[in-house]
Amino acid sequence: MKLHGYFRSSASYRVRIALNLKGLRADQLSHHLRKGEQRDPAFLALNPQGLVPALQDDKGAVLTQSLAIIEWLDETHPEPPLLPKDPLHRAKVRAFAQAVACDIHPVQNLKVLARLRELGLPEEQVTGWAAWANREGLAACEALIANEPGPFCFGDTPTIADLCLVPQLFNARRFGVDVSAYPRLLRAEAAAQAMKAFTDAAPDRQPDAE
Amino acid sequence: MKLHGYFRSSASYRVRIALNLKGLRADQLSHHLRKGEQRDPAFLALNPQGLVPALQDDKGAVLTQSLAIIEWLDETHPEPPLLPKDPLHRAKVRAFAQAVACDIHPVQNLKVLARLRELGLPEEQVTGWAAWANREGLAACEALIANEPGPFCFGDTPTIADLCLVPQLFNARRFGVDVSAYPRLLRAEAAAQAMKAFTDAAPDRQPDAE
Repeated sequence: MKLHGYFRSSASYRVRIALNLKGLRADQLSHHLRKGEQRDPAFLALNPQGLVPALQDDKGAVLTQSLAIIEWLDETHPEPPLLPKDPLHRAKVRAFAQAVACDIHPVQNLKVLARLRELGLPEEQVTGWAAWANREGLAACEALIANEPGPFCFGDTPTIADLCLVPQLFNARRFGVDVSAYPRLLRAEAAAQAMKAFTDAAPDRQPDAE
Repeated sequence: MKLHGYFRSSASYRVRIALNLKGLRADQLSHHLRKGEQRDPAFLALNPQGLVPALQDDKGAVLTQSLAIIEWLDETHPEPPLLPKDPLHRAKVRAFAQAVACDIHPVQNLKVLARLRELGLPEEQVTGWAAWANREGLAACEALIANEPGPFCFGDTPTIADLCLVPQLFNARRFGVDVSAYPRLLRAEAAAQAMKAFTDAAPDRQPDAE
């Protein structure tokens, strides 16, 4: 398999964790987002959205969107499972993952921040925007799992919720968010970061890290 | 079941279509987004994210995030299926749905547009922002299904891709986007709008429509 990604892309980071948890190897192909390499015609032919990650399976089929990729990995390589079995529990885990992947990350990604700059907002307001999106979203995430025993977001093994949380906390810190306001999220992060599958997926451990 | 929604919320619209396709009835509880009713303490106790839709099942359990709700409906009421059986096909359908639900909708929702106004952007730029998010995203969606035979996004029955597409095209038109640039998307929309499950879910057919 080949993973088209970027060391600092939090959506690529989610997929790296999933591959590690499943014990799968993928060659990493880096697309430098700040240089716009995700808009190269060769990559657009693979993924018309011009976004990382994209995963190519061994037959060359291209999968896009991190959560769709992760559910595919979970369906084709069921052990260890990244979703609970019970439908209601699955829905709770997916809702948490989507609270990150729909309601935080896209509002503070590189493309949106670039657009804010184009509209003339000063750098301070652009960073403030990213921090706001993270604070609002993480506060909601904290409430979503307040009554979950843990130590992970949901139960005693990692799920797709943790795969989304850990990269998002990495982003939040980059934007100067005080994450100590989210103790339950930090507890889940600590449980995750005790696993090699998570630490090996960290941005600064990737071949294209700067 | 109870569906907490709002007639013009495109995420609520997705769930309404799913319920109709499954032949399920839910009492609709409206939360007026422009009046901020989604921030009422009673609703925040149900969904700490303060977002619609939220679905309460017959035992009172609360589900949030439209795609998580729709996958739950599909798992608990399998007929007619809203996802194909083959894992790779499922991944393609989910990726399309997420291209809408992650990369278009959250970038142009009410909360983000309100924030742009708070930062001092004039109304013209705020609407321009929403139109930009729709144009960029829909162009990518058009490319994602360019080679799919149809008439729906994927094949001859509706999937979660169509459940996301139809409400997003409704939004795009509201923001003045020229949707004739996306003929493949319009073909899928036409197939969907020939079904009562889709037309009955339209915003102007809801009890809280203005």
